Amino acid sequence: MGKRIYNFNAGPAALPLPVLEKIRDELLDFKGSGMSILEVSHRSKWFDDVIEEAIQRTKNLLDLGDDFHVVFVQGGASIQFCMVPMNFALAGKPVDYINTGTWSTKAIKEAEIQGKDVRVIASSKDKDFSYIPQDFKVGRDAAYLHFTSNNTIKGTQWKKFPDSGDIPLVCDMSSDIMSRSFDVRPFGLIYAGAQKNIGPSGTALVIIRKDMLDRVPDELPSMLKYSTFVKDNSMFNTPACFSIYTINLVLKWIEEDIGGLGNLERINQEKAAIIYDYIDESDFYRGTAAMDSRSLMNVTFRLERKNLEDKIIAEATKQDIGGLKGHRSVGGCRASIYNATGIEAVKALVEFLKEFERKEG
Amino acid sequence: MGKRIYNFNAGPAALPLPVLEKIRDELLDFKGSGMSILEVSHRSKWFDDVIEEAIQRTKNLLDLGDDFHVVFVQGGASIQFCMVPMNFALAGKPVDYINTGTWSTKAIKEAEIQGKDVRVIASSKDKDFSYIPQDFKVGRDAAYLHFTSNNTIKGTQWKKFPDSGDIPLVCDMSSDIMSRSFDVRPFGLIYAGAQKNIGPSGTALVIIRKDMLDRVPDELPSMLKYSTFVKDNSMFNTPACFSIYTINLVLKWIEEDIGGLGNLERINQEKAAIIYDYIDESDFYRGTAAMDSRSLMNVTFRLERKNLEDKIIAEATKQDIGGLKGHRSVGGCRASIYNATGIEAVKALVEFLKEFERKEG
Repeated sequence: MGKRIYNFNAGPAALPLPVLEKIRDELLDFKGSGMSILEVSHRSKWFDDVIEEAIQRTKNLLDLGDDFHVVFVQGGASIQFCMVPMNFALAGKPVDYINTGTWSTKAIKEAEIQGKDVRVIASSKDKDFSYIPQDFKVGRDAAYLHFTSNNTIKGTQWKKFPDSGDIPLVCDMSSDIMSRSFDVRPFGLIYAGAQKNIGPSGTALVIIRKDMLDRVPDELPSMLKYSTFVKDNSMFNTPACFSIYTINLVLKWIEEDIGGLGNLERINQEKAAIIYDYIDESDFYRGTAAMDSRSLMNVTFRLERKNLEDKIIAEATKQDIGGLKGHRSVGGCRASIYNATGIEAVKALVEFLKEFERKEG
Repeated sequence: MGKRIYNFNAGPAALPLPVLEKIRDELLDFKGSGMSILEVSHRSKWFDDVIEEAIQRTKNLLDLGDDFHVVFVQGGASIQFCMVPMNFALAGKPVDYINTGTWSTKAIKEAEIQGKDVRVIASSKDKDFSYIPQDFKVGRDAAYLHFTSNNTIKGTQWKKFPDSGDIPLVCDMSSDIMSRSFDVRPFGLIYAGAQKNIGPSGTALVIIRKDMLDRVPDELPSMLKYSTFVKDNSMFNTPACFSIYTINLVLKWIEEDIGGLGNLERINQEKAAIIYDYIDESDFYRGTAAMDSRSLMNVTFRLERKNLEDKIIAEATKQDIGGLKGHRSVGGCRASIYNATGIEAVKALVEFLKEFERKEG
């Protein structure tokens, strides 16, 4: 099967090995159809079962009531940045955003391009987005409150979601969807590019509370209306079949192999603790996010001697520890430890960090 | 490897077996990276090589000059229906469309939703879209002329593209891209959902003539501007990596195994002739498209005794001949014979049609 490295990529990222093996094993003949999953019609019973299973697993895992729709939309989170204000802004009401970094900033920009009345009610820009804001007031007149649950670049994450009262929450969960359980009821919309925690790139998982559909303006282009995706069960046109198929396999792995989000959350906490604990006791490495805002998904850190950062990344790569380079906009190091990155990978990483410190420290 | 059927699906459709085998064989370890192609970063050297190769092969196969960009956009042809008028309409000028069926009708509808001055200069609706219009005049004041090169549902195809003088052609080539060579120079834009002739669903191949970018309005959402995709080489956000990877393998197969578009076009003509010739000599089957407009990609036909149509489709399925059912909007039979459906499949189909006629005729 070739070699497999320890993969700490920020996205696209590691997938569970059993999922990859399943894809490989049935690639030429999907369930006795005599066709690859890449070749079956999206209108066939074969694909219909796949998408229905993916929707049902999403509902089970997140405990979604009947008042939520699950759809799949191409274009990643970036097209959601446009679709959210296009579909959900309300005449005469501002749209509220919390800015916690690059992705929030992009979401805000797309609302502004459309001329919406954007109100940034909180921001951590003052400290280079190294923390999650705690003090803010959600306007009673807001059409919605948008935030980013986990920030891949700066390594911060909301531990407790903002309390917005009756104002619907809209959340970009691209980088921590299905990594923990939470109460979905305050959310009007959740969207997540699949390529971090639940699948390959090429589709976003979108969860829509039914009452939000009343807001969708009639005159939008068909492919930019959430109602189009709901009405045709994500098949107004041909969806990204392979991405949805792989997402379903990952969700199955979470349900059946891991035993659900409760177990996965415990594992994710344990994984993150192993790395943070080591970094905190070392004088050689330094975490970059505020303690109370640290992400369980993306552990960002620097070396006290920054001139060693290129060296450690090169050395890691040589030892089959991949993806440790920080985002190109900030530098430093980052270990992304999404759902599919196992505890053994995390332990190997810490062993490597120790050894590097021992040699260079 | 399980069984493989003869696959006449209209899309998603058959892929070349060597392509599927390659995907399977390197699924767990892409080029010694120790990661699946599903797991490598889109910013990595590995993926960069893939997308650059896919672009270069597109340029080679279609003989594109330096005045064309090649980009990959998620959302299929349907999002192109919106993006075309959004990006290329010009103030005070009408946009011209030729209506040859369902897909053209959808493209026209999306331009109308945006309030553009849509002028349908020709239509074959009078005869249920069974032919390609020949008599029409392209307005000298048009911003562009949009048409659909091949119509999957009614089985018609443009043999010679419309002559529009200096007016840029904009073409939906989803169902016959890379099936023949043609002169790209009159085209301002060509777009093609990948899932018929060049890959799996999840991305459209888009070819843009550079001068068209001058038209893109500044104030559009980022993900809806062609200029965004050109500027960032399709990586403003994470693209549909696996779809692009598979497209590259299919284009490699066309270049290296088939020997280019000239050879492929001859094979496609031969394949279509085998079926049409048999249908024409039979009194049992009847082609539905006008002779001079027949598609080389989608052979649509009826049984003179329509009550046998369900039976023939069921019987075909039993004999591992799949996808023969006509589009749900028209019924009847349809054999889609895109690039990856080989001559042996076509011969098997004709043998089956003969045998069915012998038994039931």
